[in-house]
Amino acid sequence: MTFLTDYGLEDGFVAACHGVAARLAPHVRVMDITHLVPPGDVRRGAAVLAQTVPYMPPGVHVAVVDPGVGTARRGIAVAGAGGVFVGPDNGLLSWAARGLTAGGLHPHIVGVPGNGEVRAFELANPKLWLEPVSATFHGRDIFTPVAAQLACGLDIEQVGPEVEAESLVTLPTPMRRVQNGGAEGEVLSVDRFGNVQMSLTLADLDLLGARIGGALMVALGVTPRIQGNAQHAPQRRRTFTVPYRETFGSVAPGELVAYADSAGCLALAVNSGDAAQRLGLPPGARIRISVAE
Amino acid sequence: MTFLTDYGLEDGFVAACHGVAARLAPHVRVMDITHLVPPGDVRRGAAVLAQTVPYMPPGVHVAVVDPGVGTARRGIAVAGAGGVFVGPDNGLLSWAARGLTAGGLHPHIVGVPGNGEVRAFELANPKLWLEPVSATFHGRDIFTPVAAQLACGLDIEQVGPEVEAESLVTLPTPMRRVQNGGAEGEVLSVDRFGNVQMSLTLADLDLLGARIGGALMVALGVTPRIQGNAQHAPQRRRTFTVPYRETFGSVAPGELVAYADSAGCLALAVNSGDAAQRLGLPPGARIRISVAE
Amino acid sequence: MTFLTDYGLEDGFVAACHGVAARLAPHVRVMDITHLVPPGDVRRGAAVLAQTVPYMPPGVHVAVVDPGVGTARRGIAVAGAGGVFVGPDNGLLSWAARGLTAGGLHPHIVGVPGNGEVRAFELANPKLWLEPVSATFHGRDIFTPVAAQLACGLDIEQVGPEVEAESLVTLPTPMRRVQNGGAEGEVLSVDRFGNVQMSLTLADLDLLGARIGGALMVALGVTPRIQGNAQHAPQRRRTFTVPYRETFGSVAPGELVAYADSAGCLALAVNSGDAAQRLGLPPGARIRISVAE
Repeated sequence: MTFLTDYGLEDGFVAACHGVAARLAPHVRVMDITHLVPPGDVRRGAAVLAQTVPYMPPGVHVAVVDPGVGTARRGIAVAGAGGVFVGPDNGLLSWAARGLTAGGLHPHIVGVPGNGEVRAFELANPKLWLEPVSATFHGRDIFTPVAAQLACGLDIEQVGPEVEAESLVTLPTPMRRVQNGGAEGEVLSVDRFGNVQMSLTLADLDLLGARIGGALMVALGVTPRIQGNAQHAPQRRRTFTVPYRETFGSVAPGELVAYADSAGCLALAVNSGDAAQRLGLPPGARIRISVAE
Repeated sequence: MTFLTDYGLEDGFVAACHGVAARLAPHVRVMDITHLVPPGDVRRGAAVLAQTVPYMPPGVHVAVVDPGVGTARRGIAVAGAGGVFVGPDNGLLSWAARGLTAGGLHPHIVGVPGNGEVRAFELANPKLWLEPVSATFHGRDIFTPVAAQLACGLDIEQVGPEVEAESLVTLPTPMRRVQNGGAEGEVLSVDRFGNVQMSLTLADLDLLGARIGGALMVALGVTPRIQGNAQHAPQRRRTFTVPYRETFGSVAPGELVAYADSAGCLALAVNSGDAAQRLGLPPGARIRISVAE
Repeated sequence: MTFLTDYGLEDGFVAACHGVAARLAPHVRVMDITHLVPPGDVRRGAAVLAQTVPYMPPGVHVAVVDPGVGTARRGIAVAGAGGVFVGPDNGLLSWAARGLTAGGLHPHIVGVPGNGEVRAFELANPKLWLEPVSATFHGRDIFTPVAAQLACGLDIEQVGPEVEAESLVTLPTPMRRVQNGGAEGEVLSVDRFGNVQMSLTLADLDLLGARIGGALMVALGVTPRIQGNAQHAPQRRRTFTVPYRETFGSVAPGELVAYADSAGCLALAVNSGDAAQRLGLPPGARIRISVAE
């Protein structure tokens, strides 16, 4: 049983969920993915969940980044790639449950076929909940008790009625297009080190003919796409060349480098520095890559 | 066995305690409540402990926020609501051990009757400790080894002599008074999201005749009470009206809202914002609530 | 099985390692030492590891602070004090594996003799790894799977060829010298509270004739040593006297105090304050101590 939330670690929220799980499923192992998703950042939570779940033992995964808690949004349990996901129906679970791990390096270790097919159920059986349910803490009062009972063998059909997979809220698939000798993508995630992960994959780089040891031309501030969740204003247009190497340690400290990261995605880093800060590249920012002459 | 401390997560302090527990009680499950209590903030630690322990499996709870470590303050083990509490006698354990969880939503899940009665023992048996005892790390050298042995079945009378419950250092009960159509309380805690939790409860709001869907009149900067731990200067007096709703998501982003939080306390939030920052309301600040016409 | 890294807690990196360990060694207990080593700070990681491992159950310890990941630096498994250490050959493991815990208070609790002798093996058996190996995440793809299999009983000779212990990258032993009635040392570490831990030990203080209740003369900004990792510019020379007490709580809030800390090292603290900030003393800074008249 795993947990991913934006609850932070300074309050007792995570512990209350762990405690409820331990009371209901004392023999189930609990593992934390992270509790430091920026508050309310559903997209960031979805990206970390999708990239991490493949490495966790198959099981039940509770994910809560839930700015709409207590409003009309549904609670759901979704059987998909890597197990059963329990959380709000706001898109948070959509990438992970469908096995969308971009260019994940180790697809074979996920036990459940990540073919994009899921079965979804609406949480509607209050007998499984901690009553009375707080309007602001469904993690403790609904999601965790349901998940703990699923982890103990409860049939998923007991949590509530099955709903159409198409009715689920789904985050747009991150933009990613290879054409005319260039690849366009967007910033998927920025990690602790300031490394900038893009939606483009190793396969995309191969299509472009990029070779480790060569260089890439990077254009920032490209035209934003029309539809989708372009939350961020386009950046000032800039173009620069960056060496394409195995790892950030392949360049001198302070230098910029492009590499395929541990999720199989193209990433930009500054060796011993912070690329996101230097380049001003927030999640969602658009980027165009081509092979430098 | 649970841990709550102000040790932070960047050093090896928490791990040393976990390690000592694992050596002495290898089969006992260890769960963390939090280690990010602000350094030395006994009141904040007491509030998180009291609100979280009811959800943990009954057992032994180690709590260490201990600016007086190594001085004359006693170490104690207190049998109370939710199990046995081990830590310094500085008030940190006083709310949790007496089952004082304000308007806690789920009082029935605490196995031990939270009737306010406790039995207390002074830690005075060095045979149970890790010798030599560091003057600055009783968490590792006294509290954890005693707690681990209690979790393995050691009789609490072995830890040292029983002491009068009345002799324990006790934090003042948070101020809370309903009269003349108004309720006076104080800020109990501020969480990661900036939500401001008050000492007033759902029951107090019912007494006032407040109804979800209506509005509350909030006055800040009321006269500070004479005795008690009024650590903070009174704020500039201000009065405003705030909608009283189910949850923060019931109002538009950026708007202020009053709601009953997951501990059953009245709370103020800004949807997708930080209410503590906007209102300038630190823990201990006084507040008066009435029903708006 | 323990983990110490600089991965931080906001990404899924730690969880991916935990997940890989749980898949390969489901019955092995996993404990975290810390994941908040400042990014790339090998020396800080080495200090926390060496001071904490003695308290953990003997076992396999994964440590990853690895700015050179993916470059020519070796991966190693080192059998030493407290178990087997798995990580990069960049000095991170060198203090812990040799049992160098400065003036550690409880040397007797380490099961393995910390006599400084180690056996070392280069990680060179890809059958034990998660293939394909990411060039930037050896923690997940090499160190954790090797460690998990060692924790399940794999013979350490299976990980790759034995290498000379003398060939390992070793951090210089922190400077520490007692002569002419004074003791010279350097700042080893600064903890969450701003307490400044020095390389000098209780034994050094005894040699000087220092007595609790007396006072120490502290000189900052002493001549930096010629060889070694003096990363920091020498401070402006300053001399002051500080009371030598049992604990920081022995002086009034806001006052500076010297004491023997929980690792048996001389430390400087400000009661309820931040000594590192007040004194401007970063790790590596030189300091000279003598007994005040």
